[in-house]
Amino acid sequence: MLLHSIDVIGTFVFALSGASAGIRRGFDFFGVFVVALATACGGGIMRDLCLGATPPVGLTDIEYMIAIIGAVLLGIFCQELIMRMEKPTLWLDALGLGFFAAFGSDKAYQMTGNIQISIILGCASAVGGGCVRDILTGRTPIIFSKEIYASASIVGSAIVLLGSARLISPTIAIWSAIAVCTFIRIISIHYQINLPPITLKTPNRPK
Amino acid sequence: MLLHSIDVIGTFVFALSGASAGIRRGFDFFGVFVVALATACGGGIMRDLCLGATPPVGLTDIEYMIAIIGAVLLGIFCQELIMRMEKPTLWLDALGLGFFAAFGSDKAYQMTGNIQISIILGCASAVGGGCVRDILTGRTPIIFSKEIYASASIVGSAIVLLGSARLISPTIAIWSAIAVCTFIRIISIHYQINLPPITLKTPNRPK
Amino acid sequence: MLLHSIDVIGTFVFALSGASAGIRRGFDFFGVFVVALATACGGGIMRDLCLGATPPVGLTDIEYMIAIIGAVLLGIFCQELIMRMEKPTLWLDALGLGFFAAFGSDKAYQMTGNIQISIILGCASAVGGGCVRDILTGRTPIIFSKEIYASASIVGSAIVLLGSARLISPTIAIWSAIAVCTFIRIISIHYQINLPPITLKTPNRPK
Repeated sequence: MLLHSIDVIGTFVFALSGASAGIRRGFDFFGVFVVALATACGGGIMRDLCLGATPPVGLTDIEYMIAIIGAVLLGIFCQELIMRMEKPTLWLDALGLGFFAAFGSDKAYQMTGNIQISIILGCASAVGGGCVRDILTGRTPIIFSKEIYASASIVGSAIVLLGSARLISPTIAIWSAIAVCTFIRIISIHYQINLPPITLKTPNRPK
Repeated sequence: MLLHSIDVIGTFVFALSGASAGIRRGFDFFGVFVVALATACGGGIMRDLCLGATPPVGLTDIEYMIAIIGAVLLGIFCQELIMRMEKPTLWLDALGLGFFAAFGSDKAYQMTGNIQISIILGCASAVGGGCVRDILTGRTPIIFSKEIYASASIVGSAIVLLGSARLISPTIAIWSAIAVCTFIRIISIHYQINLPPITLKTPNRPK
Repeated sequence: MLLHSIDVIGTFVFALSGASAGIRRGFDFFGVFVVALATACGGGIMRDLCLGATPPVGLTDIEYMIAIIGAVLLGIFCQELIMRMEKPTLWLDALGLGFFAAFGSDKAYQMTGNIQISIILGCASAVGGGCVRDILTGRTPIIFSKEIYASASIVGSAIVLLGSARLISPTIAIWSAIAVCTFIRIISIHYQINLPPITLKTPNRPK
């Protein structure tokens, strides 16, 4: 129940970030809605397609749709409110990141029993939507160069597998995963910690 | 039979728009062909992957392939003819839009029984290929900011579900959906009606 | 056994090209890793999703992952070595291209019995990862306008089907396909042979 609330909150916050990106690009209502939908559901769709879990749950559940439409309307009509709420939004985004990573990784492990793909798809669930958002709005995906974002989701994806594999209680594992991922993310925002970019030593490189 | 003809015509016209975009970018024959294929089949592939209907029908049917190759050759060798045919091409494109929306939405409903995903995938069938075309040629998807295009496909996707759910005759529903979607699109071209872009009220927005 | 070695070598070289592209864009470690993974596995994932062969084999096999991580570390820490090895790398890339085309086309034929989709997916296996790499790093896919790359993979994909359809020995077919595709590619690099770009005759074109 609490988990489900976090899921919907995460969907809402992710959709809000997509809607904001679309509005900044001057999209019309439909464009803003598509970017919001793709940001909120894109990671989960990637995960579900790779698992053969069709149709993707993100497209069939009315609660997600309500959360997304709510985010779009809020993004359009309450721009000043959203500006004032920037900090809480970032915290909720961190919470959503933790949830999607933990949930995605656990779902992948239940369906495949393969640790490697579970971590990859946990991370993809959490950050895939943001990648799609950036590509649709004509930017290089921000998670590739800014802030500890994807790395936090990888840690969360790995922790949850301790529970999926019954090494510790699944309930403890999922809550620990969400907590640790969210915590890493918030710390990295607060202290503006980035992974360093890879230094390019040579002027010309092979294709 | 008539429906099937519309399907192939729509595929042809979509492929032509992809081929034109690739030619304008200076692609070679292969590049032009890939963009044409992706534009014509991209939406249907998205729909079929989300429905678990593999392999996607757009990649296995020889008639689509002939239509796509025909469009590529016409795009390359008859550029002046295509310029003179711009208006009829837009009408055929509107017809294809209506068909893909109606067919995609109906197929999704038959396979899932879920209204929400049927409308989403009807719309994706109709406009997904154009999005892929724009991303492959390095542009922000035009449907997000110009003209009533996707909105028309959503209306068509919704109308066809009245028939899928047996509220009205499925035959009437599918023809109404195609007609209404095509009509909305042609009217919006003729009178140059756009959805308004969302106004950005504040200079800085949260990520 | 030898085929499997070529597979892992191809994965490694493709990952290296992805890692190099990510490093040039100033991505952090995670970004470089994702681009390497997407380049190495992107084509195979497209193929497997279209075939309904989930989860995609590229995401579950530890050997690929080791090859990818190795390529990322080499890309980051041995940039000068990689520069000196540019020519051998191009040859190995050509070999990987041939293998992925032949293997992808054969797998598609075994699962569908359809020649058209087998050639398309053989080509997609071979060049899809490179397309994803270019989109993730904000470039127009290079295979659309430069060098005989995809065309070589189409020839390889077609040759292997002679064996898949039992017209010739499958073993001979797969080795011929790899050899011919690799040979075409190396010749085109050596003599800098490109497909000509399509000439744009008219200043304005229909959308």
